[in-house]
Order: sequence, then C-alpha cells, then structure tokens
Amino acid sequence: MKISVYALPDNIQEKELKERIAVVIDVLRAASTIITALYNGCKEIVPTAEIEEAIMLAKNYERETFLLGGERNAQKIDGFDLSNSPYEYTREVVEGQTIIMTTTNGTQAIRKVSDAKEVIVAGFLNAGAVSRYIQSCGDDVTFVCAGTDNKFSMDDILAAGAMLDILDGMNTQMEMDDLALVSLHLYRSYKNDLKKALKGACHYKNLVEAGFEKDVDYCIKIDQFSIIPVFKDGIIKAAQDL
Amino acid sequence: MKISVYALPDNIQEKELKERIAVVIDVLRAASTIITALYNGCKEIVPTAEIEEAIMLAKNYERETFLLGGERNAQKIDGFDLSNSPYEYTREVVEGQTIIMTTTNGTQAIRKVSDAKEVIVAGFLNAGAVSRYIQSCGDDVTFVCAGTDNKFSMDDILAAGAMLDILDGMNTQMEMDDLALVSLHLYRSYKNDLKKALKGACHYKNLVEAGFEKDVDYCIKIDQFSIIPVFKDGIIKAAQDL
Repeated sequence: MKISVYALPDNIQEKELKERIAVVIDVLRAASTIITALYNGCKEIVPTAEIEEAIMLAKNYERETFLLGGERNAQKIDGFDLSNSPYEYTREVVEGQTIIMTTTNGTQAIRKVSDAKEVIVAGFLNAGAVSRYIQSCGDDVTFVCAGTDNKFSMDDILAAGAMLDILDGMNTQMEMDDLALVSLHLYRSYKNDLKKALKGACHYKNLVEAGFEKDVDYCIKIDQFSIIPVFKDGIIKAAQDL
Repeated sequence: MKISVYALPDNIQEKELKERIAVVIDVLRAASTIITALYNGCKEIVPTAEIEEAIMLAKNYERETFLLGGERNAQKIDGFDLSNSPYEYTREVVEGQTIIMTTTNGTQAIRKVSDAKEVIVAGFLNAGAVSRYIQSCGDDVTFVCAGTDNKFSMDDILAAGAMLDILDGMNTQMEMDDLALVSLHLYRSYKNDLKKALKGACHYKNLVEAGFEKDVDYCIKIDQFSIIPVFKDGIIKAAQDL
C-alpha cells in the first residue's frame, strides 16, 4: 500500500488522487467536530468553503431541519447556530439535522480533494476506525492535512502519524513517502504525551490563548469513536448510513 | 528571532520574505555542489530555472571563462560541461570560472525567493557557518527547502534541523513555527546516524539506485566548509567575495 502525506491541500499532485483514498485531517477542530456530530446522530454535514455559500445552501432546507455551523478566526460566525467547538454538537442539538458547515481550513481541504476515489474525514478521535477501514480497502492512501492558514500544522501531522502507527501495528505493508515517515516518527516520539509536542505548535497555542483549551484536550483524544465520515456528492455522512 | 521552515518554495507566504533572510536548502545535490564549487575558488554561479536560459546566458561569456553545469533526472545535461555531482567541481576544474547552473529543484528554489532581504544557499556542508552568520545578523529567518519534484524531502528538512540545533546550541532565542519544531526534533533524533533517517527517503533512495551513493555520503557531512553562498542580482558568490 502506497502512503503519501501532504501538509497542505495545495501541495497535492492531483493526478494521483483518482485511484486513491484521500483522508482529510483537520484535528483542530473541523474533523473532530464532524466526527462528534455524526456520532451524535446528525443526518449529514454539507461542507462549504465560503460563508456566503453556506447561507445560500441553507435556503434549500426547511428551517427546523438544518443548522449553520463553523468559524472564522476560531470564533462563531454572525448569524450561525453553532461555532466550531465539538462540545456544541451534542445529541440534543444535532440529532437528525443537516449541518451546513464552513471553517477556515478543514472544510476547504475536503472540497479540494473531491476528485479522489473516496474521501474520508479523520482526526485522533476516529484514528483506529479509519486505519482499520483503510487496511480493509487495500487501496493506496493520501493523507491530506488541512494545515493552518495555509501553513504546515503539527496537530494534523501527528494525527497522520497516529494512523500510520496503528496501520503498522496491524502489519500493513506500507510504502511511505518522506512526510509519512516523518509523521510516523514524530507521533511515536510523543504518543504518550501529545501535549508536549503541541505546546509550541502555532494552532494549538492560538486556540489555548483564545480560551479553547478544553476543545483541544478533547480533539487530541485518540480512538474514541468508530465513526468514518465519508464525503460524497458534496455531503458528509457516516459510512454506515451510506 | 522568528524562524519559519517551508518544505517547498511554493508554500512560502511571500509577504514575509522582504524583511527576512531566506536560507535555501537543497542538500541533494545543488546546494552541496554550489558550496563545494565556491570553496574550490569558482568566481560565481549563475543559477537558472531552465536549460534554455542557461544556454542563452552562456552566450554572454568568453568560452574559456564559463562552465555549464547541472542535471535533469539526476543526469548530466547534453552539451553541458559538468553534472550536478560535487565531486566534479574540483579546484582544477572550477577555479576562477563562472558556472552557469540549472538543476531540477535547487536552482529553481533560489530564483523563487529572490524578493528576500538576503538569500543564502545552505546544506549540511556549511551548516555551522550559516548558523553563525544568521545569529550575527539577528534578522528573522525563513528556511526554504527545495524539496524533490515539488514534494516534501527529508534530506532538506534534516539540514534545516541541523542549523536550528546549532543555533539553539549558541543560545539563540528562537520563535519557531511548526515545521521548524518538527525539523529540529527530527534532526536531533537522527544526528548521530543521518543515514538511518534517510534510508527510506525518496530522493536519497533514487540517487543511491542511480549510482550516486558516494555523492550522497559527501553531501550529508556536516560543517565541512565556512563558505556562505549569497545570491544577489541573479548571481551567487561567496560572502567574502562580495
């Protein structure tokens, strides 16, 4: 199984995606929020790159059937129902709902890899489930980190490393590119204390300074849910609901 | 001192370059060859992105005053005097000469950062000299890895980590971005056995398979020369010759 890791969606050499599973990673916080929302029974998530697109799309839904969620500069968007904090996406709030979601990095990354054979959304929270799914498919895999403001983001790289560590633990034969090797090494160096690795990392520091430490602690818990969010025809659903 | 590391020239957020020193890293092999050529007394190096540009430029020089050097697919270019192997750039061959050079990754990276306050070329061979120079300047620094065929390349990241390790050893106060932190961690993990890190790395493997293991062994020797290649007005010269 060939494994590539890209630090940013813009770095992808797109020709290789059509025959591969793309695993989009945005630990802080879009992927973690999407996984949580699907676990808590939301019907589907519609990711949009822009705020305006989210608002336009919402006009297609009855008011009681959808929620607008997301962030800009880590903060809730004016007029939206929910921010990008996974703690807001409780069962009481999201069950049965369509969530139209726009975030700075994550939802844009998902849209950019839509040419892939299959698009999955991953973070630490579902690292085990995604790894088992990848192994069962046997296809080559491209991990696409969302990055932070178009820069290399350590949280996403560590999560890629976590999945590679799990795959390796299942004796998966992997032909890894350089960033995959670096991700795996980095994760193994810090797997017992991820916060030690993250304490100097830009996105982590910014979220903690903005008061979101509880969110961050939640997002870096490994293997909490068996949810596999699959992006298909513009919509993210849990694999078991497809 | 703010320190950024970019895995690829295309990732640079250019607005930050104008007030920074850009350190272009292409360990295998352009930077290592440039450092070697300047150590061996070549007058200057003119990097070009394209083969045709190199041939056009050569027409401005008397035949006995210049050499055409570089590679495509790691091999010497038809009609050129020298390949991209540092072992060809001996004192007997290059002393006093202008070298017009085009390579797949390195010379193109140099051209892309020409907006920086200052552009320096670095590899393992001059890691100590470049680190001391950076510390003496005190400016913020952007390390720009050339990458390999527009992908993250471990050899360049390790060299960035080597310079950060030396800077840290000199008690330089550094505010590092995420990839700088990762580069430093990676280098420190493997500093006593760089080949162990590189044995799975794509560019390293390709060069060894193509018969260039001797070149690679040469390029990953740390701190061999005090040469600081400075790119200015389209030409690379040793800092002491400016």
